[in-house]
Amino acid sequence: MKKDTIIAISTPPGIGAVAIIRLSGGEALQLVQAQFNPHKKNKDLSKVASHTLHLGEIYEGSRTIDEVLVTVFKNPNSYTGEDVVEINCHGSVYIQKEIIQLFIKKGVRHADPGEFTLRAFLNGKIELTQAEAVADLIASNSSASHQVAMQQMRRGFSNDLKNLRQELLNFSSLIELELDFSQEDVAFADRSALKELVSNISKKLKKLIDSFAIGNAFKNGIPVVIIGKPNAGKSTLLNLLFNEEKAIVSDVKGTTRDAIEDELIVKGISYRFIDTAGIRDTNDKVERIGIEKTFKHIENSQLVLHLLDASDNANIKSEIDNLKKKYPSKKIIPILNKSDLVSQDTLDILLSENQELVILSAIKKHGLELLLEAISNLYDRGALLNNDIIISNSRHFEALSLAFTAINEVKKGIALEISSDLLAIDIRETLMYLGEITGEVTNDELLGNIFSNFCIGK
Amino acid sequence: MKKDTIIAISTPPGIGAVAIIRLSGGEALQLVQAQFNPHKKNKDLSKVASHTLHLGEIYEGSRTIDEVLVTVFKNPNSYTGEDVVEINCHGSVYIQKEIIQLFIKKGVRHADPGEFTLRAFLNGKIELTQAEAVADLIASNSSASHQVAMQQMRRGFSNDLKNLRQELLNFSSLIELELDFSQEDVAFADRSALKELVSNISKKLKKLIDSFAIGNAFKNGIPVVIIGKPNAGKSTLLNLLFNEEKAIVSDVKGTTRDAIEDELIVKGISYRFIDTAGIRDTNDKVERIGIEKTFKHIENSQLVLHLLDASDNANIKSEIDNLKKKYPSKKIIPILNKSDLVSQDTLDILLSENQELVILSAIKKHGLELLLEAISNLYDRGALLNNDIIISNSRHFEALSLAFTAINEVKKGIALEISSDLLAIDIRETLMYLGEITGEVTNDELLGNIFSNFCIGK
Repeated sequence: MKKDTIIAISTPPGIGAVAIIRLSGGEALQLVQAQFNPHKKNKDLSKVASHTLHLGEIYEGSRTIDEVLVTVFKNPNSYTGEDVVEINCHGSVYIQKEIIQLFIKKGVRHADPGEFTLRAFLNGKIELTQAEAVADLIASNSSASHQVAMQQMRRGFSNDLKNLRQELLNFSSLIELELDFSQEDVAFADRSALKELVSNISKKLKKLIDSFAIGNAFKNGIPVVIIGKPNAGKSTLLNLLFNEEKAIVSDVKGTTRDAIEDELIVKGISYRFIDTAGIRDTNDKVERIGIEKTFKHIENSQLVLHLLDASDNANIKSEIDNLKKKYPSKKIIPILNKSDLVSQDTLDILLSENQELVILSAIKKHGLELLLEAISNLYDRGALLNNDIIISNSRHFEALSLAFTAINEVKKGIALEISSDLLAIDIRETLMYLGEITGEVTNDELLGNIFSNFCIGK
Repeated sequence: MKKDTIIAISTPPGIGAVAIIRLSGGEALQLVQAQFNPHKKNKDLSKVASHTLHLGEIYEGSRTIDEVLVTVFKNPNSYTGEDVVEINCHGSVYIQKEIIQLFIKKGVRHADPGEFTLRAFLNGKIELTQAEAVADLIASNSSASHQVAMQQMRRGFSNDLKNLRQELLNFSSLIELELDFSQEDVAFADRSALKELVSNISKKLKKLIDSFAIGNAFKNGIPVVIIGKPNAGKSTLLNLLFNEEKAIVSDVKGTTRDAIEDELIVKGISYRFIDTAGIRDTNDKVERIGIEKTFKHIENSQLVLHLLDASDNANIKSEIDNLKKKYPSKKIIPILNKSDLVSQDTLDILLSENQELVILSAIKKHGLELLLEAISNLYDRGALLNNDIIISNSRHFEALSLAFTAINEVKKGIALEISSDLLAIDIRETLMYLGEITGEVTNDELLGNIFSNFCIGK
């Protein structure tokens, strides 16, 4: 556990009115005091109250680097649990760099990504799952991804698991004890109580694992493909979706849009549109090879927008049915484009045959709202609203899945009345995976993987 | 004077660990309190001490937007002189936007660029010239531009002018009084005292005006052209300067470099290299037309690097002399490139003829340090070190120049013993221009021009 004093810029990179430079560690107060000329003479940062701000100047020798506000947080009442000093300086890149360099010259180490949060975890200020949620919160770009991260950051979900793990650990000790008395055929561990606990853990894990599908979609965006024959109007629809985006979806602006070119946020949920080549006539064997890639995209997507040409309407019902047959478990929205080219009678007939058909004229910009409604109707945000914990982190998903497999082995073992030594092995495995989720079992590699994905300064 | 409550993000745009959202105005405390759920129950932001931080959550209805630290600055002890609340939230773009939108829904207005600083000026917290220096400080990207801005921000320079202007104003009143008694030929205003004051003002203005040349160069970078015959090695030198930049100049990294492609910082001073076409043989009349543009660049530059080819050394002395004759007031550094292609004897002869010649082999990367030293020797940072005020703002330069012209008219008038009414006109003009510098004479247009160049949130 490194306990030296670390420093980093905590605000976004670049020029702004104000930037924050954060120091944490046992010497943070003294180090800043030594370079700080407070406007109120003789002010001693180590003697001021926690959570207070102090105006003054950061200097190096005879040179004033900036007029700043210094914020003091005293351990343990700080983010990291250590003494933390934040320097609010003018947001010039030059000044930010000069202040960082000044303290590095004075022996402060530049913080690794996420190191402040790592220290918060190591000092018991937050659970590991809460720490991980901090990174998700900072990366959140939609209402749904924000809410998933927020819930997890505020409550975590590992305390429940910790208690269950502790109970299992007690049983484990009893069973290990049985091994010492293996000749005498005693059972210290009450098998029916163990069975109930194991069943509880299994149910709990199942619920969390099941939440990952929606959690992951909320966090990373739902992958969507638009498919259809080349002239069905795919590009026009894409343009319609992305040009009118700002008018329709107030959530998306500036940075969010820039980050992922083809992301659209509808009612707070992010959809990632994956570029596909239009599907060509599938009867032609040569062409079929060319569109295999598009089919792969369909398989990787969660939602298919199936664009059909109203002006070429002889086989629409069979086209829809064929796609459904090919991807029975996929969410598919059939869209009848170019509706402006056919009569209302034709539309009525097609609609009566395919009630879920969304009527669109991409070129006339008619029907987009209906389409967006059809999309958002598929994704229920109920889970978010009733405040359930939804996991969205693939590390959690993997560890939970491994723990689930292991606990079910324990369950099976109890049912089959296997020997204590074999049961003990399965329990130990379960304890390990549970511990990795709760943060009770960690190692440098695990923590390194988690915190290296954080931004600098957090 | 608008006194509603305003809001803006004060940290650089984008994603970071932390962002600051700043509110200023009479209702800032109540408005934040209404959306703030402090971790310490029943905490009332209007009752806490100034310069303190408070942990809690920003919420909207039943939804928590973020866990934040709220900083309270109570008027008049704040940047703007009003009540100021800063919300330190997680640096997600989504969260920043949600918090801004929440308060805008509650009736807070989004701040204009520089509006916080405008309020600081209007509330008498800072001088106008200090306010302007804040923007320069944030934009500073080199040691020199930083120091010029810092000196001006800390001390301003208008208080001195204000006092002189006040004295002049007193004389002005006396002279206006003389006009009422014009039939009686009395002189209330002591002409010799007035003469001394006018002379003082004139000297003061002259000193400030003269500092602009260096101040502007420090702030905006010194414009440099590299000229020479096409095969003299201009491109190789440019590559050498910019490739090795990072190794030589610790000041330049990342953002600074990206902003102006051809900027080089040498010993804390920024040099802006202006692309020019190589100078071709000036004896050819047709070609001469083609290089007129390069000569324009020379005229606009402050420093000329005159690249000469050592392997083609017959006319080097005359080439140097011709350029000097053509631009007698320009700083020119003659550089003998391709020094690796000639013997030491040849170099010695050329050096003895032209002692200021810098010997270089751009391709062998020899002589760069000597060249950089020759460049930085031309620009004295002494003015910065002895703590003189250096003006760098073109608005100040223009207003100071106009005031200087006007005060010299007054001076002339006194010498010529012109009538009181004519003298009064010249004095009034001087007072107006001085007032525009000190901020005592302002109007919406002037303030609009100044503050619209600020970044949002300052």
